[in-house]
Amino acid sequence: MSGRLIGVGTGPGDPELLTLKAVRVLAEADVVAHFAKRGRPSNARAIVAGHLRPGVAELALLYPVTTEVDRHRPDYVAAIDGFFAEAAAAVEAQLAAGRTVAVLSEGDPLFYGSYMHLHVRLAPRWPVAVVPGITAMSGGWSQAGLPLAQGDDVLTVLPGTLDEAELARRLSDSPASVIMKVGRNLATIRRALVAAGKLGGAVYVERATMSETLTVPLAEKVDDRAPYFSLVLVPGWAARP
Amino acid sequence: MSGRLIGVGTGPGDPELLTLKAVRVLAEADVVAHFAKRGRPSNARAIVAGHLRPGVAELALLYPVTTEVDRHRPDYVAAIDGFFAEAAAAVEAQLAAGRTVAVLSEGDPLFYGSYMHLHVRLAPRWPVAVVPGITAMSGGWSQAGLPLAQGDDVLTVLPGTLDEAELARRLSDSPASVIMKVGRNLATIRRALVAAGKLGGAVYVERATMSETLTVPLAEKVDDRAPYFSLVLVPGWAARP
Repeated sequence: MSGRLIGVGTGPGDPELLTLKAVRVLAEADVVAHFAKRGRPSNARAIVAGHLRPGVAELALLYPVTTEVDRHRPDYVAAIDGFFAEAAAAVEAQLAAGRTVAVLSEGDPLFYGSYMHLHVRLAPRWPVAVVPGITAMSGGWSQAGLPLAQGDDVLTVLPGTLDEAELARRLSDSPASVIMKVGRNLATIRRALVAAGKLGGAVYVERATMSETLTVPLAEKVDDRAPYFSLVLVPGWAARP
Repeated sequence: MSGRLIGVGTGPGDPELLTLKAVRVLAEADVVAHFAKRGRPSNARAIVAGHLRPGVAELALLYPVTTEVDRHRPDYVAAIDGFFAEAAAAVEAQLAAGRTVAVLSEGDPLFYGSYMHLHVRLAPRWPVAVVPGITAMSGGWSQAGLPLAQGDDVLTVLPGTLDEAELARRLSDSPASVIMKVGRNLATIRRALVAAGKLGGAVYVERATMSETLTVPLAEKVDDRAPYFSLVLVPGWAARP
């Protein structure tokens, strides 16, 4: 038996948003791997907990950093790169033993997911499959009942880590936008939306589809505190009836 | 019993990409509604066929046009607007009778879906819920094993119906892009990619996750024939290891 890597999207948080394929793959996998911050439970594992085989082997891949730091600092880049290399080696040891390893990924594996760091390192050498997942942004606009883009609308996905002028420029240039990775950047994001004249329609979604979720027009959110798992939706479809 | 409208994402084509929530909602619905072209089976209905209750009431919403025409022509706009008003009235009659109506939507209901036209007409007057679905683009990049966007990458979703200069400008301005609604626009899209210097990395995906799917580097696809259900992926993550 040859080892096999499978990236499995768990969706944004609601366990019912798992796909039938994800459930089957989890039932068949020899090993279930998941990323987590050290000392914290894995969100992705919590989402799929009800679908793990009792006693299935698990492989926890623990990030070396627990707080948000500047992702461009050389020491951070070196640490995180070393971590992903070690994580890939740990997964590869299981593949070399002939096992099928399902790597959990919140949302969709190939859309800003940590799984991608394993994928690019292992896909050249091992059979790989990816099971797509519901993204946090889909979970967010569905929960908000907010039509995002229609017809000829362009939709832009913007990491909230961009600087204010760049965010404002891109928000102005796109009929519809989604801002991800809001976290500590909400004050900057709010100013960029004001500069683009788009604060009015913007909707803030915290922990989309999770049990303690919140949906509110951003203009009505009085503070700029936001967890990492939050996003801002800027709907398009200006010609809607 | 009050009527209830539920938009249900069916995902891109593979029936296993239905979510557990979609399966439950379909099992509980009084009426299952689906859009189709007249004389053609509904793609969305085919995806969920294995999960419909035997004998469940169905409501087919049949588009008045069967060929791709210029979506900006006044006669087209009037015809399609009248159709969506009639479709909303047909669904509302079921809601008024106290029924729960699940409206199928390929991909994700609020992401370029026909369901959105019912949603905006009925959500002001009826209880509404939306079950997100796997988008065609997620299905496409998962099938291709192609990491799309990571870290600070901007991702732009571009309807292939945009004109060539606008496509080229936006492709140049975005690290990662997805071009939807390829169909008859593939020659234009190809020229725009060349102008943006991005033909090399572009991947063409036809009927993502469906049984007769195709994935090929766009540069290696020799003709410009493409079905409506095709897309072009332009991966970002320039700094990938």
